[in-house]
Amino acid sequence: MFKNIFFKRKGPFKLNKLFPNLSNSYSKVADVKTLDKAGKFDLTFFDSLNYKEFAEKTKAGFCITKENFKKYLPKSCEAIIVKNVLLELAKATSKFYPDSELDYPDLSLKKPQKFKFPGVKFGNNVLVGKNVKIGKSSIIGSNTIIEQNVIIGKNCKIGSQIMIKNSIIGNNVVVQDGAKIGLKGFGFIPLKEKNFRFPHIGKVILEENVEIGASCTIDRGSIDDTKIGKNTFLDNQVHIAHNVKIGENCMIAGQVGFAGSSTIGNNVSIGGQAGVSGHLKIGNNVKIGGGSGVVKDIPHNTVVMGYPAVPLKEFLKKGSDAK
Amino acid sequence: MFKNIFFKRKGPFKLNKLFPNLSNSYSKVADVKTLDKAGKFDLTFFDSLNYKEFAEKTKAGFCITKENFKKYLPKSCEAIIVKNVLLELAKATSKFYPDSELDYPDLSLKKPQKFKFPGVKFGNNVLVGKNVKIGKSSIIGSNTIIEQNVIIGKNCKIGSQIMIKNSIIGNNVVVQDGAKIGLKGFGFIPLKEKNFRFPHIGKVILEENVEIGASCTIDRGSIDDTKIGKNTFLDNQVHIAHNVKIGENCMIAGQVGFAGSSTIGNNVSIGGQAGVSGHLKIGNNVKIGGGSGVVKDIPHNTVVMGYPAVPLKEFLKKGSDAK
Amino acid sequence: MFKNIFFKRKGPFKLNKLFPNLSNSYSKVADVKTLDKAGKFDLTFFDSLNYKEFAEKTKAGFCITKENFKKYLPKSCEAIIVKNVLLELAKATSKFYPDSELDYPDLSLKKPQKFKFPGVKFGNNVLVGKNVKIGKSSIIGSNTIIEQNVIIGKNCKIGSQIMIKNSIIGNNVVVQDGAKIGLKGFGFIPLKEKNFRFPHIGKVILEENVEIGASCTIDRGSIDDTKIGKNTFLDNQVHIAHNVKIGENCMIAGQVGFAGSSTIGNNVSIGGQAGVSGHLKIGNNVKIGGGSGVVKDIPHNTVVMGYPAVPLKEFLKKGSDAK
Repeated sequence: MFKNIFFKRKGPFKLNKLFPNLSNSYSKVADVKTLDKAGKFDLTFFDSLNYKEFAEKTKAGFCITKENFKKYLPKSCEAIIVKNVLLELAKATSKFYPDSELDYPDLSLKKPQKFKFPGVKFGNNVLVGKNVKIGKSSIIGSNTIIEQNVIIGKNCKIGSQIMIKNSIIGNNVVVQDGAKIGLKGFGFIPLKEKNFRFPHIGKVILEENVEIGASCTIDRGSIDDTKIGKNTFLDNQVHIAHNVKIGENCMIAGQVGFAGSSTIGNNVSIGGQAGVSGHLKIGNNVKIGGGSGVVKDIPHNTVVMGYPAVPLKEFLKKGSDAK
Repeated sequence: MFKNIFFKRKGPFKLNKLFPNLSNSYSKVADVKTLDKAGKFDLTFFDSLNYKEFAEKTKAGFCITKENFKKYLPKSCEAIIVKNVLLELAKATSKFYPDSELDYPDLSLKKPQKFKFPGVKFGNNVLVGKNVKIGKSSIIGSNTIIEQNVIIGKNCKIGSQIMIKNSIIGNNVVVQDGAKIGLKGFGFIPLKEKNFRFPHIGKVILEENVEIGASCTIDRGSIDDTKIGKNTFLDNQVHIAHNVKIGENCMIAGQVGFAGSSTIGNNVSIGGQAGVSGHLKIGNNVKIGGGSGVVKDIPHNTVVMGYPAVPLKEFLKKGSDAK
Repeated sequence: MFKNIFFKRKGPFKLNKLFPNLSNSYSKVADVKTLDKAGKFDLTFFDSLNYKEFAEKTKAGFCITKENFKKYLPKSCEAIIVKNVLLELAKATSKFYPDSELDYPDLSLKKPQKFKFPGVKFGNNVLVGKNVKIGKSSIIGSNTIIEQNVIIGKNCKIGSQIMIKNSIIGNNVVVQDGAKIGLKGFGFIPLKEKNFRFPHIGKVILEENVEIGASCTIDRGSIDDTKIGKNTFLDNQVHIAHNVKIGENCMIAGQVGFAGSSTIGNNVSIGGQAGVSGHLKIGNNVKIGGGSGVVKDIPHNTVVMGYPAVPLKEFLKKGSDAK
């Protein structure tokens, strides 16, 4: 639907160029997208039953998947059966987006020309890439780097010594000093001599009124985006991995970490140093105690605590049993 | 007692300007301070029985509090009864200090003029704000930013890529690369559309011989200060929230986190990745095992471990019971 | 064997200059090295039975140790019996390497002269110290600092706002934005008025194909080196203390922390926020669950989880017992 403004796409490619095994398939593939966003000329992937609902409704023309998952795909979608879905996806995506598997420092950076950014205040030594847009009344602190094509809204307070790349940032967003936003995530296929890095063609989206604490790291999405909903506040040293989606009005305390692809609801509060494993669904109005380790989905309106995190009652009971 | 050198104060204000409900109160209020520091023209607040002792002895003229806490205040102190103490405190403080709820990057930064800092060595691209003072024989690494009014003692080793603002730093202090010191803390009143940020008019005080590791974050106080006692050493990636007070001769290992307003005694050692919840009192000579989660006060001379942290004996017993 | 390219050595010193108690010992000592690397003119130290094997085979001429450890040393090695091995070692090492107990920011930094770095691409405001070597096809991002004598291989992608000092980096290494590599570790002898800092004369070695995530901190070794084996990948905000050795093909997820001097095998994977205590040996092919706290050695091919970490079966059993 939307053009990728951060990564240049090659192609289209014929199927047999992407998958040499399919030597007789000449269908043209335009892009790589997630199950819910792909259209009839796009390639998608289906690797975990967590995404069965999306698979059943996908409008993708082509889908990399496993033999036993094929049955969930609609007839309009051609299944491409492979052994290692993520490796084949990584290889195909790298053909479309050959420079997305790593962060190549932006060599188009320059001191911002004031006339291009009316109403924006800049500290010293700010560096800005090509096509960066910043809304009026925003302020950018010293030594901060904003790489090419980044969009920042109005009335934002972006601190000093920050890196922002591959990101779209709404109005009234606060980013504290030292945060690193939009870098590639920790995704790769482990191989003996040299791991195969997973491309990261997604971006980071920070909605309006979001606050990001000092020295946070927020990785961009791999195929999908990483997203933080409006009025959600993060304390210092929080780590958010690729593809994580956090809802609105959440409070995330210091040193919390999220592994890749988890989805957090609205009005969630998470205590300091808690961790959330990958590919989980955390409901709305959930409270996660400080230091907890969340390893499975949590339904709406639940208070959990512990390692692994369990509902509060159970946690308190466990403690007294063990005494 | 002391003038706030980092934030410009407005006022004095009449009580009815600060609290429109008190339409007939014309007393003048000069400033906002904590229970122990406020004088007869100052406004203070009393929100938790943890601070009962201070409330009973306060010299403040005015105190925002709850109906059932009023009885602890001396007669000399006029109680201002509200539903949400912190929200009303935040609103009043914002009137006195309108620019303290966020970190506005210092736009007065310049390359240091050598003659203003005799005996100080600077790396490249150091940026220094107005009225910064640095003692002789100190060294400041490249790309480091020291914002306006900061005071740094003699013989300090301040590394590179560091941010220091709203801080007073003693002699012989070491700060390693990438640390962020004196930023606003994670304090706000959660509101649906846009959280109300708590003003941060406090500072960070690092006493002599303190060492701060690489990429630590030390937030300044909200109404009070954040303080680290002499000869206390912090390893890398430690997070210290607003108003935390750490005593002398402490050892804080890597990735430890402190939530807001806790007080740590002298000679305390804390193992890596441990966490200390907010508003706690940790005694002198306490040892906290690595990875522990401290959720209640710890008396002097105690060794604790676990999540939640318990005295060592109990921790070892628990482990063997559960087998 | 190898010359220390990062720290200037003084000496040789006579034994009685290093240890005033040994007033009649005029033997010359050339350097300070670990048990396995010291030669007949070198001083070493032996402080823990973990290193008994190395002690028995050492070729060192002199060894600081305790009375009851003397028996393990070969006859060719003169035992220097002291009460506090590490304090005496620190004092002696400081005589050989007087500037190694702290990180003095490199004041030789300059913008890189392009002709000295053929085939290397630089972002803006990069600062490079004396004698730095960078292999062709490498790229260095903006605001990054590379201090004197650092060696970086070919085809490396070094991001922005990074600090690299006292390090030797192989080919094809990736370092993400904000990482701090080669700083002194958290080593000191606690003393009441002013701790005695342990010298850090070691370096950081990153072998080929290593990846270091954003805002990681990797301290250099004290007497020994800190080393990460080829094709090992670290996610964001990982902390690696002095002397740690990590093998090849490891995966270290976000916010993991290693205390000093631990050795990790090959093909080890460690989940997010796990911690590894100091002086441990972790075998090959070990898997450590996210959030675990490892406090003892782990044999090869073991899966562990929990705090303290135990073999997975035991962890699961514990959980069900406590219910």
